[in-house]
Amino acid sequence: MSQFPDNYSIGIIGATGYTGEELLRILARHEQVTVSFVTSEHEQGQALAYVYPQLPHYHNLKFISATEAAEMMVDLVFLCLPAGESGRIAEHFLNKGIKVIDLGPDFRFYNPQDYFQWYRQEHPCPQLLQETVYGLPEWNRYEINKARIVGNPGCYPTSVLLSILPFAVEGMIANAPIIIDSKSGVSGSGKTPGKTTHYVQINESVQAYKPGRSHRHVGEMEQELHKWSAKNSKIIFSPHLVPMTRGILSSIYLPLKSNASKKELTQILEKRYGEEPFVHVLENEIPSTGMAAHTNHCFLSLEMPDVQGKNDDEQYVIIFSAIDNLGKGASWQAVQNMNLMLGLAEVTGLL
Amino acid sequence: MSQFPDNYSIGIIGATGYTGEELLRILARHEQVTVSFVTSEHEQGQALAYVYPQLPHYHNLKFISATEAAEMMVDLVFLCLPAGESGRIAEHFLNKGIKVIDLGPDFRFYNPQDYFQWYRQEHPCPQLLQETVYGLPEWNRYEINKARIVGNPGCYPTSVLLSILPFAVEGMIANAPIIIDSKSGVSGSGKTPGKTTHYVQINESVQAYKPGRSHRHVGEMEQELHKWSAKNSKIIFSPHLVPMTRGILSSIYLPLKSNASKKELTQILEKRYGEEPFVHVLENEIPSTGMAAHTNHCFLSLEMPDVQGKNDDEQYVIIFSAIDNLGKGASWQAVQNMNLMLGLAEVTGLL
Amino acid sequence: MSQFPDNYSIGIIGATGYTGEELLRILARHEQVTVSFVTSEHEQGQALAYVYPQLPHYHNLKFISATEAAEMMVDLVFLCLPAGESGRIAEHFLNKGIKVIDLGPDFRFYNPQDYFQWYRQEHPCPQLLQETVYGLPEWNRYEINKARIVGNPGCYPTSVLLSILPFAVEGMIANAPIIIDSKSGVSGSGKTPGKTTHYVQINESVQAYKPGRSHRHVGEMEQELHKWSAKNSKIIFSPHLVPMTRGILSSIYLPLKSNASKKELTQILEKRYGEEPFVHVLENEIPSTGMAAHTNHCFLSLEMPDVQGKNDDEQYVIIFSAIDNLGKGASWQAVQNMNLMLGLAEVTGLL
Amino acid sequence: MSQFPDNYSIGIIGATGYTGEELLRILARHEQVTVSFVTSEHEQGQALAYVYPQLPHYHNLKFISATEAAEMMVDLVFLCLPAGESGRIAEHFLNKGIKVIDLGPDFRFYNPQDYFQWYRQEHPCPQLLQETVYGLPEWNRYEINKARIVGNPGCYPTSVLLSILPFAVEGMIANAPIIIDSKSGVSGSGKTPGKTTHYVQINESVQAYKPGRSHRHVGEMEQELHKWSAKNSKIIFSPHLVPMTRGILSSIYLPLKSNASKKELTQILEKRYGEEPFVHVLENEIPSTGMAAHTNHCFLSLEMPDVQGKNDDEQYVIIFSAIDNLGKGASWQAVQNMNLMLGLAEVTGLL
Repeated sequence: MSQFPDNYSIGIIGATGYTGEELLRILARHEQVTVSFVTSEHEQGQALAYVYPQLPHYHNLKFISATEAAEMMVDLVFLCLPAGESGRIAEHFLNKGIKVIDLGPDFRFYNPQDYFQWYRQEHPCPQLLQETVYGLPEWNRYEINKARIVGNPGCYPTSVLLSILPFAVEGMIANAPIIIDSKSGVSGSGKTPGKTTHYVQINESVQAYKPGRSHRHVGEMEQELHKWSAKNSKIIFSPHLVPMTRGILSSIYLPLKSNASKKELTQILEKRYGEEPFVHVLENEIPSTGMAAHTNHCFLSLEMPDVQGKNDDEQYVIIFSAIDNLGKGASWQAVQNMNLMLGLAEVTGLL
Repeated sequence: MSQFPDNYSIGIIGATGYTGEELLRILARHEQVTVSFVTSEHEQGQALAYVYPQLPHYHNLKFISATEAAEMMVDLVFLCLPAGESGRIAEHFLNKGIKVIDLGPDFRFYNPQDYFQWYRQEHPCPQLLQETVYGLPEWNRYEINKARIVGNPGCYPTSVLLSILPFAVEGMIANAPIIIDSKSGVSGSGKTPGKTTHYVQINESVQAYKPGRSHRHVGEMEQELHKWSAKNSKIIFSPHLVPMTRGILSSIYLPLKSNASKKELTQILEKRYGEEPFVHVLENEIPSTGMAAHTNHCFLSLEMPDVQGKNDDEQYVIIFSAIDNLGKGASWQAVQNMNLMLGLAEVTGLL
Repeated sequence: MSQFPDNYSIGIIGATGYTGEELLRILARHEQVTVSFVTSEHEQGQALAYVYPQLPHYHNLKFISATEAAEMMVDLVFLCLPAGESGRIAEHFLNKGIKVIDLGPDFRFYNPQDYFQWYRQEHPCPQLLQETVYGLPEWNRYEINKARIVGNPGCYPTSVLLSILPFAVEGMIANAPIIIDSKSGVSGSGKTPGKTTHYVQINESVQAYKPGRSHRHVGEMEQELHKWSAKNSKIIFSPHLVPMTRGILSSIYLPLKSNASKKELTQILEKRYGEEPFVHVLENEIPSTGMAAHTNHCFLSLEMPDVQGKNDDEQYVIIFSAIDNLGKGASWQAVQNMNLMLGLAEVTGLL
Repeated sequence: MSQFPDNYSIGIIGATGYTGEELLRILARHEQVTVSFVTSEHEQGQALAYVYPQLPHYHNLKFISATEAAEMMVDLVFLCLPAGESGRIAEHFLNKGIKVIDLGPDFRFYNPQDYFQWYRQEHPCPQLLQETVYGLPEWNRYEINKARIVGNPGCYPTSVLLSILPFAVEGMIANAPIIIDSKSGVSGSGKTPGKTTHYVQINESVQAYKPGRSHRHVGEMEQELHKWSAKNSKIIFSPHLVPMTRGILSSIYLPLKSNASKKELTQILEKRYGEEPFVHVLENEIPSTGMAAHTNHCFLSLEMPDVQGKNDDEQYVIIFSAIDNLGKGASWQAVQNMNLMLGLAEVTGLL
């Protein structure tokens, strides 16, 4: 509980990965919250400023263990943990009346079978899935505002769902596969060193990984797509690693039932996002990931290749969607969700 | 004409761009040819070693003008010129009995209408299109060997055609659009400085350009696809610029009529390319462009996403194709064509 | 003049370069100022959001010409102009009672001869040099606070002066040349496309430029060094371009008169900067530019190579200094100066 | 022993690191040698083409263990092993009449004390140091030609020694410290993944490491400097990691006794290297590492900053030296040494 009515106290569980560090960076600017604790099993006892000299703002914090954190009282905790590790911890904090935003995958599914299908492990806390909210504010703002627990969306799904849900809810998506070709910066692969993240392996090279339907974010995308009316849509998804640190560009080849013009389709996006502070439809250029770097913005544009599908009334539209994978794709969106859950202005600290 | 029966003399028209420089780099290693002249309107009179200190091997050459070059006698010339500029020059050299390889687009089309459709200008020398050969050795080896003039393929088409022609000739491609999502290094954009090639614009960013059917390489791809039996196929093509100097990765979503397995499809590629020195089918990993950098190799692999198309007997296969855009995608392939046209061992100077 | 007593209105002259764009980015977060106008001769009449879709926050602004801007009334203007262009404009605004921060070089010198020596042109407004303040807040805070006009320091001089002034004022610098080897990101070269900023030229390469005493920042560094007691010091300076967008690392080989230990020298830095919000002395690691990216921080560390100079009581210390060239090296430091000149808390908008 | 008098058989011990892979790449082009075996303890039994699909040329080779290799008969072996591991293996091959080039540090020193001082371990085979030759062909060509065992120089020392030895042998170097500020690509850090080579750590950042006199290459540089007449010179050395894969640029601040002009100093370099195929003195530009990438070339230039040292007759010259750390800095230079040791033309396979 915070001392002052307009200042909330925050905890971060697992603060030494990229999403935790990014949370710390932007929360330093947020005038209505204070980070009260950060945990790291590996760095516990160490001063935060020793591990992150680039964050001198937090000179008073030390890393503590998750066990110590369990005794702390705050208003909201962010969980930055691998799959399967958030369940019990989330339950503990909820029982103490502390709100939870999970940046990992444990609270992005509505039923445990889907979670099992994509993560190959039993859900650690299936009963909580009944109340978890999928933290995509542009689509679930009202539910997030009321939620005790939010599953912050994956980076790829954020870029994809913002692009295609407007057409899904209009019932416009045809039955052919939706082909999604995504290009991600390397921070999306996490901080643990390995052969695939060695500088020499990544630099001056582009490569696909887990193509087709093998990446676990496919499950999350299809869940939301089916929820928002596109009940039969199937996704073919090829993520790629490109030599940059941040950013996701999703190039989406979306089969549409009707023969709408580029202008009509653009208007569908603009109608949906015209008032949104963080989703922007570009009419005169194709977004680049550089535009979105270090922001909470998503930039969209679309192109009509004028090639019909099998039936004369079918066609493909190409949608380009650019975000920062650590921004709208992770930590910045998590703060947007936090603002909603705490009743603060949604853009606070996110400009 | 060369002094010795087993050493041929070579000229390069337009030797200050990236493809010309790369030709010089690899011809330095080629023991059966000698570069006799290089032209540059801008650098004429200048010593080659002054403009390219990184190529000290050519200390005897000076840049000359194209007019001076027209008087020279050699065995073969490479043309590294923009669209529309190769026609008359090619004709002049052919008339003197000199063979020509054009690295630009002027001799990649078989009829002038197609050229006009994609390049929006009259072909400068339409009568020569009747004899020009499309310089993809793995598919036109015999014709290249006999040719007086060869149109060296574009970088994107090289990566794409090597991937899909084996399925085209088998009659396996279904009528749905072929979706091609390509990622290119920046050397493909040429050497002229501009906003889109400024380091700060490119670095830490990915962006699509000319998506759909607006890139001129679509014409070249569809011409060859239709020639090799896939008469109704239409391409949707999105090229992207990624922050690297060299390399193209094409991720190709190919609709197939039949329900073949990954193993069967891999065998179709291997049957076609098993003996090829420069095309390699990978079974255990997905190719990266880094593997192909500074080589004439093309690496292919394929994945089955197990998502059916509209009809139950249709399916998509994803093919990944990695080349060096200046290697197999331009200058190295040009030397492969040269070797064939001069009757040399095809791999000479290309290891 | 601003509408509300605690909100100031700001103008930016020349807002389409990198420093102007960066000012816009961080001023969007600054709650006590409002950008009232931006100028661009080239983009005048164009909406800011059209030119910079990545800055949707400024949807109400259009670019105007400098002539139009001259009629506007604001509290402070930033000038982001090339050498020689700031003089008259600065004078005009000062005459209207508007404070001025020049991010170009015109107001970094105290006498017009020095300006002429390094910029090879007459100073456009020499009488103003009597009152201009060199905008390095850690050393001139009091003067900046009272100033009408501030010359925002160059990027290289910021990184260097923060490193060596503490030793200069202690009278510790020996007479041997100070050797400064700096490595800069490419945004420091400006936005105009050219051969030297082409992606392919920069990527996978490191190169020195203007080495020795030919870079104009040498003048600025020596002026300040001499002002702060090191009257005979001469600088040898080699700037390098490295393949990254942002950041400067200066590796400084500083000859010292005495045989102080690493600990003693570190204490001199810490005594000077211990209370500074943006200058940090690292004891356990060597700073990287990545630590300073997108911040106003400068990180310092030092090493003793234990090699004596010519006299036994002389020695070299190596100081490493990392900043963001667009951060502490330009726009962020300009906002720090703005905060001081407007009487705001110095860190406002800079976390 | 090779089958044909003009074709030699070669073995590579430790062929899975970057230097081993680079050896394989260039030996594929070398027409007078054949790679007969490659070893890897980790990959033994595996086909080379499986581990390196990018090297399809070697489809007949499998990795074997060093124990198996000990039974093989070849003409020459390359050792690509960490410090301390080459000694016994080298002795074994020498005893069989097989020549040895060690790309590691074990045979770069002439006496075991120096080796111990810099590598903090006993030399595994001190008696061999009496005959080992330091493999810098431009300075030791005659000895290399006769040698049974050659220590291939370190990457940094190669770039530095080629720059300063011409002035050392002329007796021109003054007693002040030689300050060397080097910038290296990341392949110099080796292939083992770790925090310091993670893409995200390296990209968009520059950082010094082991500055002063803590890098082990200082020992090698001073040994050669003292051997070639500069008996009292001391080096201050700061290596830096920059975000690129290949290349070293050394910026060398060399104190000279005399007041020679830039022209005179350039002539000293040109007199020494004018006939060298791989060392080039540039008069009109400063070398970049990009010029040397994927070559055996070293490019040099020098600048006079016109700042005197403590005595009026002393001055500093700045020398810039660019190589590829895997080229002239490792594997390509090793092949140059091999050519000399086998009596082949020195440039064979290195164009």
